[in-house]
Amino acid sequence: MGIDPGLTRCGLSVVRSGHGRSVVPVAVGVVRTPAQEALPVRLRRLSDAVESWMDDYRPDVVAIERVFERGNVSTVMNTAHAVGVLMLSAARRDLPVHQYTPSEVKKAVSGNGRADKRQMTNMITRILGLSEPPKPADAADALALAVCHCWRSPFSALVSEVSEVSERKSAL
Amino acid sequence: MGIDPGLTRCGLSVVRSGHGRSVVPVAVGVVRTPAQEALPVRLRRLSDAVESWMDDYRPDVVAIERVFERGNVSTVMNTAHAVGVLMLSAARRDLPVHQYTPSEVKKAVSGNGRADKRQMTNMITRILGLSEPPKPADAADALALAVCHCWRSPFSALVSEVSEVSERKSAL
Repeated sequence: MGIDPGLTRCGLSVVRSGHGRSVVPVAVGVVRTPAQEALPVRLRRLSDAVESWMDDYRPDVVAIERVFERGNVSTVMNTAHAVGVLMLSAARRDLPVHQYTPSEVKKAVSGNGRADKRQMTNMITRILGLSEPPKPADAADALALAVCHCWRSPFSALVSEVSEVSERKSAL
Repeated sequence: MGIDPGLTRCGLSVVRSGHGRSVVPVAVGVVRTPAQEALPVRLRRLSDAVESWMDDYRPDVVAIERVFERGNVSTVMNTAHAVGVLMLSAARRDLPVHQYTPSEVKKAVSGNGRADKRQMTNMITRILGLSEPPKPADAADALALAVCHCWRSPFSALVSEVSEVSERKSAL
């Protein structure tokens, strides 16, 4: 499951990882919460939505974008609050959570850590064999996070194995 | 219920508001989550703890400190994630949540928005008639938030009433 976190719009996606680099799209959507509602109520709505997705799709792992302190302060804070409740839902199901920065996602999906929105949407559309580009941007970002995790996780596992071997060697 | 939010240490307090400015302390404590654990697991531990406090003390309202972007970035983000799960627990019980800035709390409790930690601890100890100063600082801050809400909320209600009257007047 890939999550592009946010309180006004939160992108959610589910993909199935196949052999090699094959990734099959399963579901994609955007959860919106009304800006005029109180923050705790919005967080409950978001939590209810992601719980319902987790009930329906029973993911094995969650990939979520890492939040940075940039842009509008209250938007960053709202997104950070949203990440808290999203991670809590994963933790309540004992799902491992992986965080990726936007440039890690861009690099993994397009080969270029500075790819723009259009390039990313084009790549995601081709990789997943979609008939049309996913909309809005948050939906495309959620799919990109899921693809990023599928492609990076075997590599990450390999790197951590290699690093363990090196550590054992240096300890001789 | 007053909450000084945090992931490493989260201060929790419960007070009972009486006539006038009388406030009676009911409970105070600090929830700690181990820094070496994964973020989602720490958020689950914090959520479980605050839910247990809410089950035991059945508060009517929650006062929580507003998070600012200052100091260490990862500490601010972890605190913002913590605020998300704390607010979610309140929302799941339909409890109203009020946020106060540190200077609003200082002003309400000590009359001085720039009071230092020692002054605040002394005031809280006197106001609540405690036999000794509450420790650690997070516990004292949680009590200060609760007292701040008790003393400010009748005033806030009055201000919003007055403001409604003015609005009606200006619409004439």
